Amino acid sequence: MRHSIGVDIGATKMLAGIVREDGVVLHRIRVNTPAHDGAQVVRTLVTLLAELQTCEVLKTISLAGVGIGTAGQVDFVNGCVLSGTPNILNWANVELRKTLQPITGLPVWVDNDVNVQLLAEASLGVAVAKRHVVMLSLGTGIGGAAMMNGELLHGSWGGAAEFGHMTVDFQGPLCNCGARGCLELFASGAGIAAQMAQRLGLVEGQAKELTGEMVFRKAKQGDVLANEVLDQAIAALTAASVNLAHSFNPEMIVFAGGIMAEGNGALDRVRQAFAIHGISSLLGTVTLANARFGSDAGLVGAALQPFHYHSHAR
Amino acid sequence: MRHSIGVDIGATKMLAGIVREDGVVLHRIRVNTPAHDGAQVVRTLVTLLAELQTCEVLKTISLAGVGIGTAGQVDFVNGCVLSGTPNILNWANVELRKTLQPITGLPVWVDNDVNVQLLAEASLGVAVAKRHVVMLSLGTGIGGAAMMNGELLHGSWGGAAEFGHMTVDFQGPLCNCGARGCLELFASGAGIAAQMAQRLGLVEGQAKELTGEMVFRKAKQGDVLANEVLDQAIAALTAASVNLAHSFNPEMIVFAGGIMAEGNGALDRVRQAFAIHGISSLLGTVTLANARFGSDAGLVGAALQPFHYHSHAR
Repeated sequence: MRHSIGVDIGATKMLAGIVREDGVVLHRIRVNTPAHDGAQVVRTLVTLLAELQTCEVLKTISLAGVGIGTAGQVDFVNGCVLSGTPNILNWANVELRKTLQPITGLPVWVDNDVNVQLLAEASLGVAVAKRHVVMLSLGTGIGGAAMMNGELLHGSWGGAAEFGHMTVDFQGPLCNCGARGCLELFASGAGIAAQMAQRLGLVEGQAKELTGEMVFRKAKQGDVLANEVLDQAIAALTAASVNLAHSFNPEMIVFAGGIMAEGNGALDRVRQAFAIHGISSLLGTVTLANARFGSDAGLVGAALQPFHYHSHAR
Repeated sequence: MRHSIGVDIGATKMLAGIVREDGVVLHRIRVNTPAHDGAQVVRTLVTLLAELQTCEVLKTISLAGVGIGTAGQVDFVNGCVLSGTPNILNWANVELRKTLQPITGLPVWVDNDVNVQLLAEASLGVAVAKRHVVMLSLGTGIGGAAMMNGELLHGSWGGAAEFGHMTVDFQGPLCNCGARGCLELFASGAGIAAQMAQRLGLVEGQAKELTGEMVFRKAKQGDVLANEVLDQAIAALTAASVNLAHSFNPEMIVFAGGIMAEGNGALDRVRQAFAIHGISSLLGTVTLANARFGSDAGLVGAALQPFHYHSHAR
């Protein structure tokens, strides 16, 4: 079996490892992300890769390449982070391939963190053998990814599938992206907390302490306002899922993280509403499922890139 | 240059012709659609094709194939109309390829009418040399199409890009598709008329006489309610365009027909609002443009299919 190096760059931690093509992680390193400085993130990357390349296990195996997954807008064609997450400072116009390819002597792929999560699910997870799959990754914010005909949808430069910023309420509240009524405002962790804070009449200082998890807990305890917020999140997620089915005609929509993983029946509620709220020929051929990978999705998905693209021109 | 037969099947008319690959129509036939009976539509198709195949001009040229564009949900892989427009009765489960291929002795492609319109624009129209293009076709309803990496996005069986049924208001009015707040309800001809009728307090019988064109005319004359409806249509179209840019990262969004073609500055208004209402890296790389083809888009686009797919397996 083939092996590669995978790196998952998040706002708080960086995870790097030597990964076998069946998803087994042979060796892993985890460090905090130096999020105050993008240049420091690159230096940390160089150190991590050097450490992995001198790893004992490489005496008997060779590496197919390096795959990186990172938050933010990625120019997939050139392997460059274009404009990043606000959580890593100066994480913009970072030419990762150009920097890391000569140093490592290995081909380097760089993609958005949710794109590589979907690659993991489609290669080894819940969407194995599916060729048309869409993903919503629910966390503090909401990310998206789409695979059509077995290939990730990148669009003209790699910025496609920003489904967290799909407007589901065009006359609704303003999002920090500039659009109105984005899905994130209703169904992300931060959005759910903000909707609850608004209903409670909290001022900004108090609202900061509220989290999505607290709203779920309150909803379970029967809190009326919390259930109102949760109902709204489910309705927004259902509308977004129907939009994805109408737009992409996928075989499956995969949900990662967030309220879908809370064991509160959210997936079943979205499934029920989904089935009756759109064009039946398109909805009837879609399965809604939770992701199978947990916290290793980014690492493994990133590492799968060299195998997935090894026959493609870079 | 190569030649093919194109057929455009609409709810009121069927247009068939011999088309050269540069878009010139050498011979054309136009008949009314026998919309009361899908089986009769197929018989009419057979007659039209037979007539074209005995055409004088074919003594000196040969045909690459037959391309058909039709309203409704099309199983592109099998060349079968799955579930049609309500405007043609029993236009469902119609195996066009299976029926027409043996009769004509030519390879037959069948696709959705908006998909072939986009094929025309990308091959010979406003989107030439673009590889990532999305289309909104605005008429009584709203259809959509997407081209990624130079190929039409069909999804798992051919039903992708139903952008008229993209929810832009998830708590809004119910659409006949089953979803809430679909783009069609705000920005199609029928939707604009219905929004105006509602504001005027018209009952169903009176409302039927109202059309989108009448609302545009009234808006130009300074009518306050008509302008309110038009403003809302522009806002919904802007939100939908931003969603398409966020989802597909295209180089261009093409608008066909409807309010964009009315010469009322609608395209400029959408352009202005679009530029400031979303993720700047994604919006900054998109051009918004009106389609170049007029009423021949469907015929020419349908006819281009044999050339476009001639090297693909069917």
